[in-house]
Amino acid sequence: MADTTTSYSDVMEQIERDFDGSVERLGEFLKLKSISTDPAHDEDTARCAEFAAQMLRDMGFEAEAVQTPGHPMVVAEHPGANPDAPCVLYYGHYDVQPADPVELWDHEAFDPIVIEGEHGPRIVARGAVDDKGQVMTFMEAFRAFKETRGELPCRVKVILEGEEESGSPSLDPFLEANRERLSADICMVSDTGMWDIETPAITTMLRGMVYVEVTVHGPSSDLHSGMYGGAVVNPINELARLIGMIHDDRGRVTFPGFYDGVAPLDHEVKAQWDGLGFDETGFLGAIGLKEGKGEAGYNALERTWCRPTCDANGIFGGYTGKGAKTVIAAHASAKLSCRLVAGQDPQSVLESIREFFESNVHADCRVELESHGCNPSIAVPTDSKWLVSARGALTDVFGRDALLIGTGGSIPAVGSIGEILGIDSLLVGFGLDDDNVHAPNEKFELTCLRNGIRSHAAMLEAFGALSAH
Amino acid sequence: MADTTTSYSDVMEQIERDFDGSVERLGEFLKLKSISTDPAHDEDTARCAEFAAQMLRDMGFEAEAVQTPGHPMVVAEHPGANPDAPCVLYYGHYDVQPADPVELWDHEAFDPIVIEGEHGPRIVARGAVDDKGQVMTFMEAFRAFKETRGELPCRVKVILEGEEESGSPSLDPFLEANRERLSADICMVSDTGMWDIETPAITTMLRGMVYVEVTVHGPSSDLHSGMYGGAVVNPINELARLIGMIHDDRGRVTFPGFYDGVAPLDHEVKAQWDGLGFDETGFLGAIGLKEGKGEAGYNALERTWCRPTCDANGIFGGYTGKGAKTVIAAHASAKLSCRLVAGQDPQSVLESIREFFESNVHADCRVELESHGCNPSIAVPTDSKWLVSARGALTDVFGRDALLIGTGGSIPAVGSIGEILGIDSLLVGFGLDDDNVHAPNEKFELTCLRNGIRSHAAMLEAFGALSAH
Repeated sequence: MADTTTSYSDVMEQIERDFDGSVERLGEFLKLKSISTDPAHDEDTARCAEFAAQMLRDMGFEAEAVQTPGHPMVVAEHPGANPDAPCVLYYGHYDVQPADPVELWDHEAFDPIVIEGEHGPRIVARGAVDDKGQVMTFMEAFRAFKETRGELPCRVKVILEGEEESGSPSLDPFLEANRERLSADICMVSDTGMWDIETPAITTMLRGMVYVEVTVHGPSSDLHSGMYGGAVVNPINELARLIGMIHDDRGRVTFPGFYDGVAPLDHEVKAQWDGLGFDETGFLGAIGLKEGKGEAGYNALERTWCRPTCDANGIFGGYTGKGAKTVIAAHASAKLSCRLVAGQDPQSVLESIREFFESNVHADCRVELESHGCNPSIAVPTDSKWLVSARGALTDVFGRDALLIGTGGSIPAVGSIGEILGIDSLLVGFGLDDDNVHAPNEKFELTCLRNGIRSHAAMLEAFGALSAH
Repeated sequence: MADTTTSYSDVMEQIERDFDGSVERLGEFLKLKSISTDPAHDEDTARCAEFAAQMLRDMGFEAEAVQTPGHPMVVAEHPGANPDAPCVLYYGHYDVQPADPVELWDHEAFDPIVIEGEHGPRIVARGAVDDKGQVMTFMEAFRAFKETRGELPCRVKVILEGEEESGSPSLDPFLEANRERLSADICMVSDTGMWDIETPAITTMLRGMVYVEVTVHGPSSDLHSGMYGGAVVNPINELARLIGMIHDDRGRVTFPGFYDGVAPLDHEVKAQWDGLGFDETGFLGAIGLKEGKGEAGYNALERTWCRPTCDANGIFGGYTGKGAKTVIAAHASAKLSCRLVAGQDPQSVLESIREFFESNVHADCRVELESHGCNPSIAVPTDSKWLVSARGALTDVFGRDALLIGTGGSIPAVGSIGEILGIDSLLVGFGLDDDNVHAPNEKFELTCLRNGIRSHAAMLEAFGALSAH
């Protein structure tokens, strides 16, 4: 350990010296309201892309915010010190989720503040960890190398997407059109989590996703519930009944053929996961729960890492203002997402959802289904030289081994980068379970930011010592 | 028939002469945004009360808009020509439902317009029929008597409520405190419908209501559906599952003890209703439906007139904006209302709803229940001299007998006026099934407005010929 550390202690010292600057730059990044799903913030999103490109240019990158049919794609490149060293493509996203429900934030979501928490100072803002803070972990590692040595240990390319939180519609066409420009030996992604604040993790299994909006249409207009109640189908009741049917008594999803192709959990993998010492009571307790709920026969880790699901992410219909309105709504809608695992075909799942709703809905109703995105699950090779190398670097920084874990989340870009560019990804992230991702008071521990920057510096140095192929 | 008509043909002629004025005054009344359920419109609602009081003063009534803890109560009184004639209390409400969804209105909801429809001209605006248009039917009848004869056939009192659409919280205390001031021999209510545009109706059965807002609380904050999905209870799914359980396979409500005290439909009543020639296909077809849905063993008329129900009137939770957000919401809410029939105790039903949700909800969730109003069902005596007299007057105006019908809607005031003031009510209204009550493009046929004014004039004349007791 001592040897490796020595080789880049200059960079580590620079990271420490400039850490306040890193936090300040992250703060500026977080002020930009790059809510990609909301057209009202299109200009803010474009401004955020330009901000990221300018940061890269300031570090000597050739960088631009490239227009797409959707939000801009930030693309950058920097030569490395060693022409034989590999080229690493860094992927991240500069867009963020909406802040609502805004009234539940303790401070304004786009006015970042640093406050004290149980792990020391943390920065609180929408995007603090997902994904602006994580993007800054590799950006600030680049900066430290540049400040210290004037160069990077290997050739680096960067692609920062602006539509990760809105289904990535422009990503695949962009990758198709820029294969050469984005060619690299490995892709590094920081959009996942650590095992805990002291233990780094490399994510090797990612769930996929199918996200749909279902609308049940009934009467041709809203009706008075006194005049019609009891004699006609009520689209809200009908939608609720159908959503209630999605899970059976054992917590299994009832969409026809949903589990086709899903393999049972491998005994060896299960043994390995059982050895992680996962604290289910703590996992649930942190979010105010005790029992947990899910597919019978699996624990919470298995349910989120390797089992498919269906969750309602939003529901709306009828009168939602204050007080009472005695109306039977003409229609009601829900946003539903399925997390997918290996063996499931997103397109087949989408068709299965359609079949479920159309075959079960009342004859006086019509179902409308809109897809908000479809992507398969991902498995990352666990024996590559990249992973071995990254794992060693993480051990250097943390003084303990990085765990190989799964994650319940989805990063569609990893699939696209593999399929279109032919590049494997390494997923090394620095978030914690209690970071309030997609929720009010999203935060990033400054300890995680610091260790993330240090880890990327160590990994970059380690990659610089590898041969390209 | 000829004799009766002659006795007030002067008044009928005046109604005809001034009908354009009646429509104009209704238009002014409809412009006032008296949305009682929305605190943002408290001033508009107060202005509307003052407008109604001023109309009554202009006709020689002693009238005022009396402050209450909620919205003002308009109270007015006018002596009659004959001191031996009865005193009639007219009840109506000047508040209206919210206009949303506003985007479904063809014109602005509070900018009334007269357009041509299948029955000739109609006035379209929020409140056109419920209840401002119906209030104008008796107000304009008073006006015609005053213009023609300078006096009314009998003593008249008026109470116009401003909280009918928001649970009438101030009504009962106001009635308690003003027993003497509001004493009368009979109460006349115009807030119900006709059988069809040619056939008047007197409503003798009204369903009651229990309206609650149910919130299912789960995790302590919103969660990322990737990180937690499949392992934790999802309050939206849970709320949907519970709502789906409210009805069994035969369309019966499953709240424990819900049907306690509900009598089977009387054979004689059923035979009478079967004789009405109710067109179920037309009833459903008018609102774009074919099959209907409800309690097995009953037709649509029975389901809405004499069977209790439970409908969701609104539902909301999680992300409801455009596109996708992968969140598990911390809570989800629904507005639910039960229509009650004879034999059901509203307070017991409320407790039964609470028991249903609390006993069926997942252990990791907490149910919060808020009541938005509770009132029992009403049965009006069908053999009183008032009903016989009113029925005769309606026959004079329409040239055909008024039907005695039930209605699915609820008018809590009728119960309160009976219990607190000890006054029976007569429910004679002029709405049609397709008036879009509580829905976009609410309208009132001018034919119904005209016949409503004529009917009230005829009934007032008939009451003037009765003795007070």
